[in-house]
Amino acid sequence: MSPFLDACRGRPVAHTPVWIMRQAGRYLPEYRKIRENVDFLTFTKTPELAAEATLQPIRRFDLDAAILFADIMTPVEGMGIEVRFEGGPVIERPVREVAAIDQLRVPDPRQAVPYVLETIDRVRAELPSSVPLIGFAGAPFTVFCYVVEGHGSRSFAAARAFLNAEPEAARRLLGLIADTTTAYLRAQAEAGAQALMLFDSWIGLLDARDYDEFAAPLLEKIFGELGQLEAPLLYFPRGGAHLLERVRSLPIDVVGIDWQTPLSRAHTVLGSDVTLQGNLDPAALFAPRERLVRSIEHVLGEAAGGRHIFNLGHGIDRATDPDAVAFLVDTVHARTAR
Amino acid sequence: MSPFLDACRGRPVAHTPVWIMRQAGRYLPEYRKIRENVDFLTFTKTPELAAEATLQPIRRFDLDAAILFADIMTPVEGMGIEVRFEGGPVIERPVREVAAIDQLRVPDPRQAVPYVLETIDRVRAELPSSVPLIGFAGAPFTVFCYVVEGHGSRSFAAARAFLNAEPEAARRLLGLIADTTTAYLRAQAEAGAQALMLFDSWIGLLDARDYDEFAAPLLEKIFGELGQLEAPLLYFPRGGAHLLERVRSLPIDVVGIDWQTPLSRAHTVLGSDVTLQGNLDPAALFAPRERLVRSIEHVLGEAAGGRHIFNLGHGIDRATDPDAVAFLVDTVHARTAR
Repeated sequence: MSPFLDACRGRPVAHTPVWIMRQAGRYLPEYRKIRENVDFLTFTKTPELAAEATLQPIRRFDLDAAILFADIMTPVEGMGIEVRFEGGPVIERPVREVAAIDQLRVPDPRQAVPYVLETIDRVRAELPSSVPLIGFAGAPFTVFCYVVEGHGSRSFAAARAFLNAEPEAARRLLGLIADTTTAYLRAQAEAGAQALMLFDSWIGLLDARDYDEFAAPLLEKIFGELGQLEAPLLYFPRGGAHLLERVRSLPIDVVGIDWQTPLSRAHTVLGSDVTLQGNLDPAALFAPRERLVRSIEHVLGEAAGGRHIFNLGHGIDRATDPDAVAFLVDTVHARTAR
Repeated sequence: MSPFLDACRGRPVAHTPVWIMRQAGRYLPEYRKIRENVDFLTFTKTPELAAEATLQPIRRFDLDAAILFADIMTPVEGMGIEVRFEGGPVIERPVREVAAIDQLRVPDPRQAVPYVLETIDRVRAELPSSVPLIGFAGAPFTVFCYVVEGHGSRSFAAARAFLNAEPEAARRLLGLIADTTTAYLRAQAEAGAQALMLFDSWIGLLDARDYDEFAAPLLEKIFGELGQLEAPLLYFPRGGAHLLERVRSLPIDVVGIDWQTPLSRAHTVLGSDVTLQGNLDPAALFAPRERLVRSIEHVLGEAAGGRHIFNLGHGIDRATDPDAVAFLVDTVHARTAR
């Protein structure tokens, strides 16, 4: 029924499924149109609009999955952390003290993010049955980075300094984020999300020792608890090639691979019991068609012989031509039809 | 005479030499004082000030090398590209068209950057003979990123889109940057720099195929030409763990390793004929002493049995306590004394 869900589970598929990270968003003129007069936060909190954004790429392209339109900071507000958006998330009062951490709570998603659950309900009502909906959240360390740093950054120096200066307080904050994340993803599944993905955009900033100390126990706990649900579990450790040996032991179905890590290497490290998702360089979509085809073929060649969901190796760039996306989706389907 | 130069060449050393990327800079109160009333560009172009900034950390800490105070954009102005600094480099008119590339030139460093050569002269006159001066430049792809993007970025999406959309024009621009870099580094060596380092801060954005196409030929050319000089050659491919197999074939003496890549793995990939430089996480300097010592010991343990220069795995953070640096330098010396 769904090539995407089948691929997640390692079942045979008629073609390699494909979807695109950030497929709902700014590169689509129809998205820019409905965002025109609405600020980002209001947009994410208005189920009618968030559902429409989720569905737009499904209407335009032959994609094999939809992904909820939301932000990785969406569940944070309910913890008692004020977030606004100026291009990216901004935390008015970054959390860097034990006293501030003591004030935080693990919210009930039905009270904190009812709009997300309603968005899922609306999307499911309109999606064809062959296109499942992926729910998602930010992974604890990645959310921690923003909450402590206060804004996006290349190195999240303040967040990582806090991790070293106050490891116990950092662990407490990470634990609260993890519990919030588990409840948030469980609620998404109960509302109708058919797969659950954890984005760990900044995990690559941790070396293996810090990953073991600050990230691994929480990832194991989150995925362990969510494993009781029916939804397959996806994890995207961006920039985490040096952590793949460790990711292997997480109870997950799919590992997202960034474009720098060859899928053949990921396959060697992660084994055959997991599906790889990725990993075309988003910049390849700017190439002339002939060059783009070579890049697509390279990814398919690297993935050959293993479980694979085609995707980019990072979110799509806002300057991308939507026609290149249509070409990509159709090319993947045509070249992998069995 | 110089543990640093000896370590570069793989000769025996009395202790593991140590220096710190960005050791001359904002974490030092004495640097902030002399920068107080001078903008960054003027500062880098005033030999008296740039020399003083270079020497400040040598006076304060028992470091085994000095590194020229300059910016990786310093040689770019002479190519005909206007650069200003607002926190980081800003290119008024990013280079994205063939016509603009045709206007660029490879400048003579004696005309374009006489102040850099004079700075080197002044520094050498004051440095003790046991502390050599490292000259440096940005590597072609990294400089290309700024020149095309126009400013710092997390993903350099525009630069990477240009690489894909206009590969021939991109190669021409990269070639001009590479020739400028070679002349610039050669002039630094002739002025007195005793080692030459190429910083490739953004090379990790390239996958192996793009590295082969756009970076490798230029790196081979630059290092090949500079290999005729006496100065050891250092290359820092930050975030380039996936490229280390390829870096192995470059004619260089030292490879800088970021903090995410275990030195033992780098050693396995790069072999014993090269010195590894790194790779303490800069965030570790924020830890209480006991935790910091464990991190230092971990790096030394990972480096054991191979050629090693101790450094951070990235530039020092501006919020670092200088006393932590003193502690680091002394700890490395004490624990590695032979």
